[in-house]
Amino acid sequence: VRVAGVAYRAIWVAEDARGVEIIDQTRLPHEFEIVRLYALEDALRAIRTMQVRGAPLIGITAAYGLCLALCDDASDAALDAACRTLLAARPTAVNLRWALEEMRAALADVPPAEREARAYARASELANEDVAQCRAIGEHGVGWIEAVHARRGRREPVNVLTHCNAGWLATVDWGTALAPVYLAHDRGVPVHVWVDETRPRNQGASLTAWELGQHGVPHTVVADNAGGHLMARGAVDLCIVGSDRTTARGDVCNKIGTYLKALAARDCDVPFYVALPKSTIDWTLDDGRAAIPIEERDAREVGFVTGRDTDGKTREVAILPEGSAAANPAFDVTPARLVTALVTERGVCEASREGLLELYDERRTQSR
Amino acid sequence: VRVAGVAYRAIWVAEDARGVEIIDQTRLPHEFEIVRLYALEDALRAIRTMQVRGAPLIGITAAYGLCLALCDDASDAALDAACRTLLAARPTAVNLRWALEEMRAALADVPPAEREARAYARASELANEDVAQCRAIGEHGVGWIEAVHARRGRREPVNVLTHCNAGWLATVDWGTALAPVYLAHDRGVPVHVWVDETRPRNQGASLTAWELGQHGVPHTVVADNAGGHLMARGAVDLCIVGSDRTTARGDVCNKIGTYLKALAARDCDVPFYVALPKSTIDWTLDDGRAAIPIEERDAREVGFVTGRDTDGKTREVAILPEGSAAANPAFDVTPARLVTALVTERGVCEASREGLLELYDERRTQSR
Repeated sequence: VRVAGVAYRAIWVAEDARGVEIIDQTRLPHEFEIVRLYALEDALRAIRTMQVRGAPLIGITAAYGLCLALCDDASDAALDAACRTLLAARPTAVNLRWALEEMRAALADVPPAEREARAYARASELANEDVAQCRAIGEHGVGWIEAVHARRGRREPVNVLTHCNAGWLATVDWGTALAPVYLAHDRGVPVHVWVDETRPRNQGASLTAWELGQHGVPHTVVADNAGGHLMARGAVDLCIVGSDRTTARGDVCNKIGTYLKALAARDCDVPFYVALPKSTIDWTLDDGRAAIPIEERDAREVGFVTGRDTDGKTREVAILPEGSAAANPAFDVTPARLVTALVTERGVCEASREGLLELYDERRTQSR
Repeated sequence: VRVAGVAYRAIWVAEDARGVEIIDQTRLPHEFEIVRLYALEDALRAIRTMQVRGAPLIGITAAYGLCLALCDDASDAALDAACRTLLAARPTAVNLRWALEEMRAALADVPPAEREARAYARASELANEDVAQCRAIGEHGVGWIEAVHARRGRREPVNVLTHCNAGWLATVDWGTALAPVYLAHDRGVPVHVWVDETRPRNQGASLTAWELGQHGVPHTVVADNAGGHLMARGAVDLCIVGSDRTTARGDVCNKIGTYLKALAARDCDVPFYVALPKSTIDWTLDDGRAAIPIEERDAREVGFVTGRDTDGKTREVAILPEGSAAANPAFDVTPARLVTALVTERGVCEASREGLLELYDERRTQSR
């Protein structure tokens, strides 16, 4: 996708091949800054401080983080240690585990001297696969938007509501939830996106609004509180969100607040779609609420807001009374029963074990 | 309720009887500032800019605003004009209309020369009635909290979730939703409040957290997105919110986002209670979604956040990318079917026409 006319991915190997570059997402939307990661510690910090975030991008960053680690020490012990540290960086998104398992599988039988090169090759493959998968999600999901447009007699834009950021900044390119939106827009289908602000970190207001704006997609930011009202008055044709972890039966763990929007969509008869690449599916789990660890992030994220001051400087202001505590669960689980359909790189399916197995037939024998 | 140990109401006649004083709620929680209203324009500004807000307090401020207007000109024409202007100050809360009708009824047959004194007398009666009604709401609602406490074998605090501010700052004293909480706390029942931040104006984070803190009630602020997750994991025993307008069949129009919490409460089997004085009931309406005008406030409230900088100064920071639009509907409607019960100054009832008529029998003949 383009930033001020120039094509970017969310992560790439530096041109001089010394390290990996990312867009520092904590600086958006007010500053566009590219940061270079030279070592494992840089990748860890990028994941932990959310310079990169979004389940698919966390996975790819971990894969490159492993490359950076092996550049220092390519022994078995170092490989093990790096995988362990990276895996612990964030608990909820399963793509982190998936990417590290893919890397391990590719590196296990490779002599240490050849590991770094092999790691970069595999990480780049994973990155390219992510782009292809997101593009495929777009192709499979765009029909939902086109169908509304056709039903309406091709008048007025199709209104999509999304929560958090599942755009290209959450992946390597294209995004998951936003891939169908970008594709519809590029094909000339008029589409307008209601962007949930997504407190407390404001990924909607600062990332989704920014990337839609850069690409020229009409959008309106609303407080997270507004979505139910918008759906009740018919202002939303469909919801599309991403997923940080999807269980084998179709429960969806995603940014805190997703569950509330799914409830409103059900109550107002608005389709609620979830877009995800296969790396987000955790085939080992069924009941999302019972089994997925929900990251509790620093309460500071609730108590302070970062923005741009009138003098153009980025500042942080405190919004709570002195002495008031805050809590900050980062994800919630939307039960499969509230999800109209899932879309993956393989197509659209029902949010159920049977639905997922129809797309991933190879899992039938492995699944419980 | 007390602020730093001193008893305050949210509005009162100045000690020297020259004007009316309020706490400037736009300065909280970082600055406690008392503002004096001398003329109708001051009262209008206070309502429009939300120096005072909350349906009951808006009503009482309008009543006093009329006193200030009559002090300048007590003619019939001036009375009419002042009522019209005040009524238009905010569209959703019906208490504004109610208070002005009460004032008109008291003043219509009074000669202009005696109107100002009569107006102050009546406005003060309304203010005192509001305090008594809120106190009664507390008495009727505290049983819900005590019942949970008893059921739990009197261990652990009872967890109440509330949205926006329906505390004493939204009324003259005590509050509506928070009246049962204050009463429980004062009676020694351990209670802990989950305070929804309530974007975009953050009345939860800045007003509810502040007043609970001043009174010593344990509380934790969470992003509006978190409530569903908290309910799903059993961390909420009951929800209590206020109402800006309640229809004759029990639909509840309240701060944007209330509907989402009511949906989650229903889905998680958590009781969802609404507390309101009778002045909030609009007997002329049935279907809240079809009939209640929803105020669209300035999009600027979504795009900017006010807080305290590290240097102690209150500042406003911009949080949206340049060029991104925002929308700001201020209220939503929760259908009666999602409300477990209403509590008013007369007692607890089902959220239905029959339920309300059981409490307000005198309305039976008038009601359609």
